[in-house]
Amino acid sequence: MLGRFPSAQVIDLTHEIVVHWPAEAGFWLERSYRYFPRGTVHVAVVDPGVGTQREIVLVIHDGHAFFAPDNGLLAPLFEREKHAYRLLPENLAKFGIGAPSVTFHGRDIFAPIAAELASRAIRPEDLGPLVEELVPSWVDEPITSGSRIQGVVIAVDHFGNLISNIPSELLDRFEAPIVHAGSISVPIRRTYADARPGEYLALVNSFGTLEVARAEQSAADGLGLSRGAPITVEARPRE
Amino acid sequence: MLGRFPSAQVIDLTHEIVVHWPAEAGFWLERSYRYFPRGTVHVAVVDPGVGTQREIVLVIHDGHAFFAPDNGLLAPLFEREKHAYRLLPENLAKFGIGAPSVTFHGRDIFAPIAAELASRAIRPEDLGPLVEELVPSWVDEPITSGSRIQGVVIAVDHFGNLISNIPSELLDRFEAPIVHAGSISVPIRRTYADARPGEYLALVNSFGTLEVARAEQSAADGLGLSRGAPITVEARPRE
Amino acid sequence: MLGRFPSAQVIDLTHEIVVHWPAEAGFWLERSYRYFPRGTVHVAVVDPGVGTQREIVLVIHDGHAFFAPDNGLLAPLFEREKHAYRLLPENLAKFGIGAPSVTFHGRDIFAPIAAELASRAIRPEDLGPLVEELVPSWVDEPITSGSRIQGVVIAVDHFGNLISNIPSELLDRFEAPIVHAGSISVPIRRTYADARPGEYLALVNSFGTLEVARAEQSAADGLGLSRGAPITVEARPRE
Repeated sequence: MLGRFPSAQVIDLTHEIVVHWPAEAGFWLERSYRYFPRGTVHVAVVDPGVGTQREIVLVIHDGHAFFAPDNGLLAPLFEREKHAYRLLPENLAKFGIGAPSVTFHGRDIFAPIAAELASRAIRPEDLGPLVEELVPSWVDEPITSGSRIQGVVIAVDHFGNLISNIPSELLDRFEAPIVHAGSISVPIRRTYADARPGEYLALVNSFGTLEVARAEQSAADGLGLSRGAPITVEARPRE
Repeated sequence: MLGRFPSAQVIDLTHEIVVHWPAEAGFWLERSYRYFPRGTVHVAVVDPGVGTQREIVLVIHDGHAFFAPDNGLLAPLFEREKHAYRLLPENLAKFGIGAPSVTFHGRDIFAPIAAELASRAIRPEDLGPLVEELVPSWVDEPITSGSRIQGVVIAVDHFGNLISNIPSELLDRFEAPIVHAGSISVPIRRTYADARPGEYLALVNSFGTLEVARAEQSAADGLGLSRGAPITVEARPRE
Repeated sequence: MLGRFPSAQVIDLTHEIVVHWPAEAGFWLERSYRYFPRGTVHVAVVDPGVGTQREIVLVIHDGHAFFAPDNGLLAPLFEREKHAYRLLPENLAKFGIGAPSVTFHGRDIFAPIAAELASRAIRPEDLGPLVEELVPSWVDEPITSGSRIQGVVIAVDHFGNLISNIPSELLDRFEAPIVHAGSISVPIRRTYADARPGEYLALVNSFGTLEVARAEQSAADGLGLSRGAPITVEARPRE
């Protein structure tokens, strides 16, 4: 990147995404991009299909550009403005990319093109045609039915907290909701320290979604749950 | 940080501190800050009490500023000059911080204020009043009595070396000291390679404290010891 | 580094090399340096012999400088041009290095001298005399005999892929080669997605060497193999 755009400000957001679950990368990207200035090019390469016929797409949303394999990673962001371009392989040569490897497109395709996009040497529309549809996300949006919300664990953080895809706005409709995860049922607290060490709790985390945690311990280890595990909220609807 | 202070030089010292032991963060901070120029703002967020009534403090020492939760992390550094300010929550709005999350003050409070401090847009005394006392450290200073020094393992490094809080100056008073850790008693050597592969040894590490190691292996794994384990030095006092 | 050369562009390539196997560091260095501009100073401190009589050397190759302990790490790169300098300890004072620690030369010797080399404040020949021989590599080059190539696993990546030291050029001589690793024998495919999830395969990776992988899983875990394990290729020689 610095070879093509020497004054680029390259920020490594994370290398901790699980290797074969693009849904988690999309989740973090969606919750992080606002902390960067408009005009930022975000690159997300969680790419189990590297070397197959999978496409590479650039999604434009809210003045930001998101560059990733078309494997569901960017599906939630695409839904907002439906504005995306598909990279045509025949354009690689125009960008000075000769013979990319079959298995490391992060190095050979994503990084160099992101640098050219960030430096404004190439424009989004130079990549290829507009696309009307992307591969859908691997994870369904949470489902609300009566007094129940059904979501999933979409990420597990460094602390072992189970981060769900249930946004706090869905919870606002319920009074005194109870959260079910694996073998436990817990109320929603304000912060980790509102539970005794070792006690499980649910809370709305700093990314605005429901999270199941264990005070000063790992909920993931304690409950034996990980990405994909169901998280259910039950409550009397607020009157 | 870069949004508030675009030319900031941000250096990630570590994200490897164990999540619920502020004492270790304080240890590394104290042993690292001299490698940075005076005027540096050091931010250390090991913060099990996030969202509770715990305070946030800025300690000034040796021309450096240290910004952390008041949970014992900065206690050893504070003892040097007893110069610290407490962040008043009512000042957050003045710094352009609207509604911080309850659980991620690193992102919402520490990072933006550190950027403003580093750019000199706000001064330490703008945070709030001087404080006279901080929450004490979680770890006692080493105790010397006669021919014995009693310390603890304060950190375990990447290699599995058990790093104690016993400074080398305490050892200088003894001749041929023997170090006890778990099931072993070993003399002090000069460097790792002075022991045969697999052999345990003690040495004064590059941070100036006593360390128990295992040549080309992990002492932590081999001895089943970790943070908080006692390390004892016994010796005839030097005459 | 920034203290001595404030405008240095410092890039952390990896801190994931296993701690006592310099051969892996040399492998990655050889496969990465071309992505940096000529004139780059590469520092590689995998240094089990720190504090012993081991030497420190600067190898010059292809307009790049490589700075590392003389423990086999740089042996393959040295063989190309046989151009290297040995750091004389008596020169440390000239470079403003007073009393380096015995166990952390990365901080006390490698980093400051690399900064001075990168800023051109000191030249390679200022370090000490030219050397004619380096400590040999810990890993033999692959051996070809008739219809067999014998190599070893030199690195295991983040995905659990077993990366061998067998370059693709050696494979070109064979038709339909079969790769043996531990309990499996597999053909060579084009990319990971050419195997079903859970299936083992071999492929030429993006670093140009033979690799044994398991589609969407870890070959290292599945086969119980790691660095140093033999990898054999058998085939009818191409007619």
